[in-house]
Amino acid sequence: MKKSELYRHLNVQLDLAVEAHQLLRGESGVEIPGVLMDEQEFEHAKVTTITVQTDEGAEAISKPKGHYITIDAPEIRTNNYIIHEDITHVLADKLIELMNLKEDASILIIGLGNWNATPDALGPQVINKTMVTRHLFQLTPDELKGHMRKVSALAPGVLGITGIETAEIIRGIVEHVKPDLVIAIDALAAGSLERVGTSIQLADTGIHPGSGVGNPRAGINEETVGCKVIAIGLPTVVNAFVIAHDAVEGVFEQFVSTPSVYKLYKGIKPETFSKIIDNVLSPFQGNLMVTPKEIDELIKITAKIIAGALAISLHPGIDRADYERYLQ
Amino acid sequence: MKKSELYRHLNVQLDLAVEAHQLLRGESGVEIPGVLMDEQEFEHAKVTTITVQTDEGAEAISKPKGHYITIDAPEIRTNNYIIHEDITHVLADKLIELMNLKEDASILIIGLGNWNATPDALGPQVINKTMVTRHLFQLTPDELKGHMRKVSALAPGVLGITGIETAEIIRGIVEHVKPDLVIAIDALAAGSLERVGTSIQLADTGIHPGSGVGNPRAGINEETVGCKVIAIGLPTVVNAFVIAHDAVEGVFEQFVSTPSVYKLYKGIKPETFSKIIDNVLSPFQGNLMVTPKEIDELIKITAKIIAGALAISLHPGIDRADYERYLQ
Amino acid sequence: MKKSELYRHLNVQLDLAVEAHQLLRGESGVEIPGVLMDEQEFEHAKVTTITVQTDEGAEAISKPKGHYITIDAPEIRTNNYIIHEDITHVLADKLIELMNLKEDASILIIGLGNWNATPDALGPQVINKTMVTRHLFQLTPDELKGHMRKVSALAPGVLGITGIETAEIIRGIVEHVKPDLVIAIDALAAGSLERVGTSIQLADTGIHPGSGVGNPRAGINEETVGCKVIAIGLPTVVNAFVIAHDAVEGVFEQFVSTPSVYKLYKGIKPETFSKIIDNVLSPFQGNLMVTPKEIDELIKITAKIIAGALAISLHPGIDRADYERYLQ
Amino acid sequence: MKKSELYRHLNVQLDLAVEAHQLLRGESGVEIPGVLMDEQEFEHAKVTTITVQTDEGAEAISKPKGHYITIDAPEIRTNNYIIHEDITHVLADKLIELMNLKEDASILIIGLGNWNATPDALGPQVINKTMVTRHLFQLTPDELKGHMRKVSALAPGVLGITGIETAEIIRGIVEHVKPDLVIAIDALAAGSLERVGTSIQLADTGIHPGSGVGNPRAGINEETVGCKVIAIGLPTVVNAFVIAHDAVEGVFEQFVSTPSVYKLYKGIKPETFSKIIDNVLSPFQGNLMVTPKEIDELIKITAKIIAGALAISLHPGIDRADYERYLQ
Repeated sequence: MKKSELYRHLNVQLDLAVEAHQLLRGESGVEIPGVLMDEQEFEHAKVTTITVQTDEGAEAISKPKGHYITIDAPEIRTNNYIIHEDITHVLADKLIELMNLKEDASILIIGLGNWNATPDALGPQVINKTMVTRHLFQLTPDELKGHMRKVSALAPGVLGITGIETAEIIRGIVEHVKPDLVIAIDALAAGSLERVGTSIQLADTGIHPGSGVGNPRAGINEETVGCKVIAIGLPTVVNAFVIAHDAVEGVFEQFVSTPSVYKLYKGIKPETFSKIIDNVLSPFQGNLMVTPKEIDELIKITAKIIAGALAISLHPGIDRADYERYLQ
Repeated sequence: MKKSELYRHLNVQLDLAVEAHQLLRGESGVEIPGVLMDEQEFEHAKVTTITVQTDEGAEAISKPKGHYITIDAPEIRTNNYIIHEDITHVLADKLIELMNLKEDASILIIGLGNWNATPDALGPQVINKTMVTRHLFQLTPDELKGHMRKVSALAPGVLGITGIETAEIIRGIVEHVKPDLVIAIDALAAGSLERVGTSIQLADTGIHPGSGVGNPRAGINEETVGCKVIAIGLPTVVNAFVIAHDAVEGVFEQFVSTPSVYKLYKGIKPETFSKIIDNVLSPFQGNLMVTPKEIDELIKITAKIIAGALAISLHPGIDRADYERYLQ
Repeated sequence: MKKSELYRHLNVQLDLAVEAHQLLRGESGVEIPGVLMDEQEFEHAKVTTITVQTDEGAEAISKPKGHYITIDAPEIRTNNYIIHEDITHVLADKLIELMNLKEDASILIIGLGNWNATPDALGPQVINKTMVTRHLFQLTPDELKGHMRKVSALAPGVLGITGIETAEIIRGIVEHVKPDLVIAIDALAAGSLERVGTSIQLADTGIHPGSGVGNPRAGINEETVGCKVIAIGLPTVVNAFVIAHDAVEGVFEQFVSTPSVYKLYKGIKPETFSKIIDNVLSPFQGNLMVTPKEIDELIKITAKIIAGALAISLHPGIDRADYERYLQ
Repeated sequence: MKKSELYRHLNVQLDLAVEAHQLLRGESGVEIPGVLMDEQEFEHAKVTTITVQTDEGAEAISKPKGHYITIDAPEIRTNNYIIHEDITHVLADKLIELMNLKEDASILIIGLGNWNATPDALGPQVINKTMVTRHLFQLTPDELKGHMRKVSALAPGVLGITGIETAEIIRGIVEHVKPDLVIAIDALAAGSLERVGTSIQLADTGIHPGSGVGNPRAGINEETVGCKVIAIGLPTVVNAFVIAHDAVEGVFEQFVSTPSVYKLYKGIKPETFSKIIDNVLSPFQGNLMVTPKEIDELIKITAKIIAGALAISLHPGIDRADYERYLQ
C-alpha cells in the first residue's frame, strides 16, 4: 500500500508541492521526469524550488506546470523578532524574483479564508496589515512614482459567508481594478506536523481546486479570475488522517524483521485502510484539524511576516525602517 | 443664524431624512413643497415615512427623490429580547413593502464600514449574521423554491483598507452575481443624541456621497453600482458639532427675554460660528465622534435586529422560530 | 497492551469520569468495586452519573471520591435553538440537584482558561455571559430576596498570563467574598472525538491536577481554594494520541482472524508503543490538539448553554423568558 | 462663573493633576500654596511633575498628597514606530524614578477597565502584552536574579462583570502574592481633546474614587488594597460636557468688546448652566463619551508603549532589543 495511493483514495491533497515531490521521490527512489528541484540555504531559512516543466510532470505530481518555492523556517516558532525580520527579507527576495514586476505595476492582494475560524484566518489577517496605496494615486501620482506601486486588497470571506464563489468576486473586481497581478494568501493543510506555521509556499500557478483549510477552494488562477495569480500559502493544520496513518506505519515498522506481519500490512488495500481511518475520524469527518495550541499566536506572527514581505517587495521605496514604522 | 445654514457651512450632513425634514419644517413653520410625511404608531416603534416627490423637494431637503422610512424604537436600548423581536418584525414588514420583491428575486447584501472601528462596524456585523443561500441553489434549487430567495452578502471594507472605491467593488460583483436588488447596511451620524442606536432608516434611493460614520462614502446607488439599491442605516454617533451647537443655543435661550442679547446671538454669521466650533474641536477635527459608552453592546443588538428582519423579509418560508434557531 | 496502561504511560488523563469508567469496564468486563453508574434518558440528552464511593474505587478510576454527572447531547452540534434550550434546562436541573443550595447562598463562578486560545476560551466566554448580582445586594437587598442569589464571577487567566497560580488567585478572592460555593468552568480534553463540544460534566469534587486543555491546571478544589468547588467541564479537543492509537487499533482489528498477528500487536509493550506515538507527534509534542473546524462556533454555543443553565439554577426567580431577555 | 465651580457642580472630575492645576492657576493667576510644578523637555515628550505637598494643596486641587508626572507626547498619534520607542524610554525612566524599586522587588500589575468597551480597554490590553515572570522564579530563581524582577499581572474586569469591587479582588490577591508594589493601569477622561491618547500620567498615590472612563472606580490605593499603588493613566475620552462648555465660552468671547453681554454670560449661575448642559446631553446622560474615530488604534499603540516601558523599567536585564523581540 503506497501512501500516495492512499492519499488519492482519501482525497487528501498535499497543498505543498515540496511534500508531494518528497512523497513521490521517496516511494519511487527515482527522479520524476519533468520535475526539477533546487535547494538554497540561508541563515534562518531553507528555500526549495520545485519546477514542474512538462505535462507529464504535472500529472505525476498532481500540480499544474509552474514554479513552487517553499521557504522552510522552523525558527518562526521562536519568539525572536530579529530572526522573523530576516525571514521576512528572504521571503521578500523570493517574491521579487517570482513576480518580476514592471515599475508601475498594479497589484491586487486577496486574503482567502474565514476570519471566524482561527486556522483559516491567515488571509484576512494579512489584509488587515497590508499597506494599500491604490487610492493615493488619485491624489498624488507623481510623488509616489518610483516609490510605491498601486496596491489594493480584499478579504472576500468564504462561500458559506458570501454565497458567492470567491473566484467570481475576484473576477468582478479584477475587471474594474485591472491589476497586472493578483496575489492570493491562503492557509494550507500540511502533510506533516513540522511544517505547520513554518513553511511558506509561493506558486506562480495560483490556487487550484481542492486546497485550503476551510471548504476546499475553487480554483483562483488566471483561468478563473482573468489575471495572473501568485499564491502565498502557509500550512496551519494537518489533516487528522496524517496522524492516523503515521501512527499505523510507525507500529508496523516495528515488525520489519517479522516479514510475514509486515507483508500483511503492506497488503492492506487502500480502500480497506481508508475505511478504517474514516471510521476512527467519523464524528467530524472531513472537518477535523490537528493544530498546535499556540495556533492563534503563530498566525499573528506569520501574517506579520507575509505582510512585511509584501510591503518590501511591492513598494521599491519602502525600506526596513519604513515598514517597521508602518507595521508595528 | 439658521441651523440649516450653519450645517451647510460646517459640512454637517444629516443622514436621516426625518431629521433634515424636522430641521427645515421647524425653521420655516410651513410644509416643504414636494415633500410628504406620514406617521404610523406601533406598540414599540414609531414609523415615519418621508416621500420626496419633486426635484424642488429634493433640493430643499438635500436628499434625492424617493422614500425614506424611519423606525424610531427607543426601547432598543433596553435589554429586552421580546421587545427587540417585536421591533424586528416591524422592520421586516417595512422592508417587504419597500422592496416589493418577485418570488424568485436574487438579493446582494453589502455591509459597509470598517470592522476595526466599533461605531463603524454595524455593516460587517450584520453580514456575519446574514443567512446566505445563493450557493445552495446550485445544489437543490427545487427544494428551496418558494421557501428561500437567493441571498448573497459581502463586507468589502473601507477605502483605507482596500484601496478601491467600495462602489467599484460592488459594481464588479453585481456584474457577475446579477442581483435584482442590492441592500446596503451602513452606520450613520445622527443630528441628535436620542437617535443613536434607536432609529433605523430605510431608503430606496441608495446611499449618496457624504454620509456615513467613517470616511464619507462615495455614493452606493443605482447609478454607481448598476442595480437598484435599498439602504438600511442606523446612527451610531453624533457629530461633536451637534453637542457644541446645542449647548450654545441652550445658553442663549436663557436670554430670550433680553432681546438685545438674543439678537446679538442670532446675528452671528455662520462663518464666524463655524470658526469658533472648529477651534474647539480642532485637535481631532472632522474625526471626532460622540457615542454612548455602551456602543459595542448597542451595535451587537441592532446588528441582530437588522439581520433578523432581513431573514424574515427575504425568505418567505422562514418563520420566527426558524430565524431564532439560526440567529442565536 | 491495555489502553488504560498505555494512557498512564503517555500521561494521557481522561478528564471525563464517564470515559475513565467506560475504559476500565470495557477492559475488565466487570463492575469496578466502589464505583456506581446510573443512566437517565431525556429527549435531547443522556445523563450518566458516576459515583465514586470508596478509596478503592477512586484509586481504580483515578478520580477522587464524589459525583460525576455527564450530560451527553450530540444535538448541541446542530444549529437548533429550541433543542439547545431543552439541553440548557436538563443541565440546570442537574446543577440544582448537585449544588443543593440554601436560599440565600452566595456563589463565585470562575472561568478557567486562556481567552487568547480558542479551544481554551470556554471559561472566559461563560463569564462574559454570566448574570452577576452580588453588587446589587448592597443597593436593594430586600427586593432581590427569594428572587436572586448573590453571584460574582471572574476569569483570572492562565499562569502564563498572570504569573500566579490560579488557585492562589481564587483563594485570595474567596477569603474576601466568602462564597458558599465556587463553580469552576473549564475546557477539557476528551478521549473520543464524538464527545468534543457535546458532553458536559459536572463534578462536586472540583478540579484535580493535570486536567484541562491548556497547561495542566493545578487543582482547584476545596483543599486549594478554601471553599467547596463544583466543576463544569466540556471537552473542546482530543489529545492527538487518541487518534493515533485508535487508528492502530482499527488496523489490527482487521487481523482478529489471524491470531498470530493480533497476538503480536497485543504483545507490544506500552513503553514501545508510547515511543512510536511520541515520535509521530514530536514536532509539537504535548502541545497538539485535534479539534473540529467549527470549534469557535461550538464554544460560542456551549458557553451560552452553560451560562443559561447557571442563571436558571442559581436565581430562583429567573424564568426562561427572563434569561432569554438577558442572554441574547 | 468659574469653570472650576462649574465642574464641581456637574461632578466632572479632572483625572489629570496637570489639568486640575492648569485650571486653578489659570483662574486665580497665582501659585497654589502647597503645590509645586516642574517641567522638563525631551525631543518627543514634555514631562510635567506636579507635587502636592500639603493638605491645603490637596484640598485646593482635589488630589491626595503625592507626585503626579504627566508625559505629554502628541506624536503618539503619528504612526511612527521610532518616535513611539523614544516615548517608551522617557516613560520607562520616569517610572524607574517614581518606583525606586529594590533589586529583588515583586510587582503586581493590574489592568483596570472593561475589555468589552473599547475606550475602557486600555488596562486589559496592557496586561495582554505584559511580560510576567513570577512563576519562573519557582523553576530557575538563580538564573533570573539581577536580570528579572518578579512580575505578576491581572485584568480583573469591572464591577458589572464580576459583582466584586475591584479593590476587594486586588486586596485578596495582594495578601497571597505579597508584592512590594501594585501598578494599576487605567483609562481616564481628559478635560481637553488634545490630551486624548497622548498624555500619560504616573501617580504614586494610586487611584482615588471617581476617576476612570467606565463606572467610577472605587479607590485602588494603599488604604484599600494593602500595598503601595502606582497608577498609570491615559485619557481615552473627554466628557461631552467639556465640548459643550468650550463652545459656549468660545461664542461669548466674541463679545468681549461688548461688556454688557460678556457680563451677562459671566453672571449665569453654575446651577443654571449645569441644567442647560444636562438638558443637551440628557439622552445618554453620564454615559456619553467623546472620542476620536481612531480610538481602537490609539489604544493598541499606547498599550504597547506602556507595556514596553513596564518591561524595561521592571526588568533590569531587559534591553531594547529583548523587549522588541518579546513585544512584537
